[in-house]
Amino acid sequence: MSAPGAKRQRTQPTYELLYHPSIPGRGEYVRLVLEAGGAPYTDRANEKGKEGYGAVLAACSAESTGDADGNPPVFAPPALRVPGAGKDGKSLLIHQTPAIVQYVAPKVGLAPADEVDNLHASQLMLTALDLSNETHDTHHPLAVSLYYEDQKDAAKTRAKDFRENRIPKFFSYFERTLKGNEELGKGKYLVGDKLSYADTTFWQVIDGLHFAFPKELEARKKEFPLIFETFYPGIKEENGLKEYLSSDRRLKYSMGLYRNYPELDRE
Amino acid sequence: MSAPGAKRQRTQPTYELLYHPSIPGRGEYVRLVLEAGGAPYTDRANEKGKEGYGAVLAACSAESTGDADGNPPVFAPPALRVPGAGKDGKSLLIHQTPAIVQYVAPKVGLAPADEVDNLHASQLMLTALDLSNETHDTHHPLAVSLYYEDQKDAAKTRAKDFRENRIPKFFSYFERTLKGNEELGKGKYLVGDKLSYADTTFWQVIDGLHFAFPKELEARKKEFPLIFETFYPGIKEENGLKEYLSSDRRLKYSMGLYRNYPELDRE
Repeated sequence: MSAPGAKRQRTQPTYELLYHPSIPGRGEYVRLVLEAGGAPYTDRANEKGKEGYGAVLAACSAESTGDADGNPPVFAPPALRVPGAGKDGKSLLIHQTPAIVQYVAPKVGLAPADEVDNLHASQLMLTALDLSNETHDTHHPLAVSLYYEDQKDAAKTRAKDFRENRIPKFFSYFERTLKGNEELGKGKYLVGDKLSYADTTFWQVIDGLHFAFPKELEARKKEFPLIFETFYPGIKEENGLKEYLSSDRRLKYSMGLYRNYPELDRE
Repeated sequence: MSAPGAKRQRTQPTYELLYHPSIPGRGEYVRLVLEAGGAPYTDRANEKGKEGYGAVLAACSAESTGDADGNPPVFAPPALRVPGAGKDGKSLLIHQTPAIVQYVAPKVGLAPADEVDNLHASQLMLTALDLSNETHDTHHPLAVSLYYEDQKDAAKTRAKDFRENRIPKFFSYFERTLKGNEELGKGKYLVGDKLSYADTTFWQVIDGLHFAFPKELEARKKEFPLIFETFYPGIKEENGLKEYLSSDRRLKYSMGLYRNYPELDRE
């Protein structure tokens, strides 16, 4: 469960991430675990010169009753294919961000070894992903099938509630969790004394919120010192993540899950 | 992993469910697993003559940095306390519906024994819970802090999209999953050939939708024959569930997660 070693690298499969191209989105929660764990993976839709996104869309077909390897259909990206990890040595195919993260994390050294710690990491990841979903809903409160422009007034109402009630509720929760684990985690880790998938997931949500609501986050920094002074800058420096975040594999925010509409931010 | 036996009963702790009183809500996803598994549990807020809800609110305090047993704070109900299952033999306390369900299910015989099947059960439970969350958001699209009456127009728009786009998308997914597993599951089970937490979770969502959107579901029945003719009526007859569903422990829908506002339903 420690830093990636040559032996573990050799015995690991090459994970295949199936997600939309060009945006971090929900795929980023999976990428961060793979990158922090030093695991080999391909990002099908972002491979240049290949018809990668076709493979993603095929896996998520709305006609599918399952694939040739015995896996049930995929509801929506992100999905993960793992050669050799399915039934009878075939490929495993799973979707749902939390299911993927929880599957991969222990295999790449990003899950706490202790079962109780791992349960707490799971609840923290799920809570961070709820905040991620609520961030998405600020720009699409009425329907994902409608344009933002056609639900802008509703978005303003929802974003106001999000900024005034939901952000402080979630951030208070994570600040208190860091505080309660301060002896071991030093304000840098949510569970125990090293990096886990709970940290990478919450870190990505904070990073996305910096893009989407820069003024709101700036105004709130002083309320949550462990999050903004220790956790957020600290996680960026972790092995694997530091290199990744400055690489061209790290995609830029644009019009995905995290969007910057100044009219939704604090004035 | 088969039917509950006397030996397993004796070695099991008494699970303590911490949830709001009087509504099925998200607590119901946990109750169904415990009831189908024949596991002993207490439902603190619904115990008559005791100050049960106080214990729930105390566990979810917005000031807490964790409890005396070394568990991190709870973000929101439902939570589960398990005597003896935490660190050094203390109590375990976890929140997040999917984390609780996934923890309890294998201990009460409601999780597939095969690891790959269990991963698929997990993704199916999470997808059903996404549909559950989207159902909630039909009556509270703008803010949980506002009354329904103050977001009724937005609710109508969101409910229309939910009925026309989201219900068919989710139901198509589960119908195709049942179809792909028909050889083993006979249309009655989503994964393998017996009841799992994926089934209890999706079943509860369908049941809640029958309450919230009765006309919409009636109109759609013929599109999804495995769900409505085999799965939904079949799960009701399972050991443990049949008794539970006719008992007074099964709470009535009212003004919780699933609400019946006729103006949001199909005309």
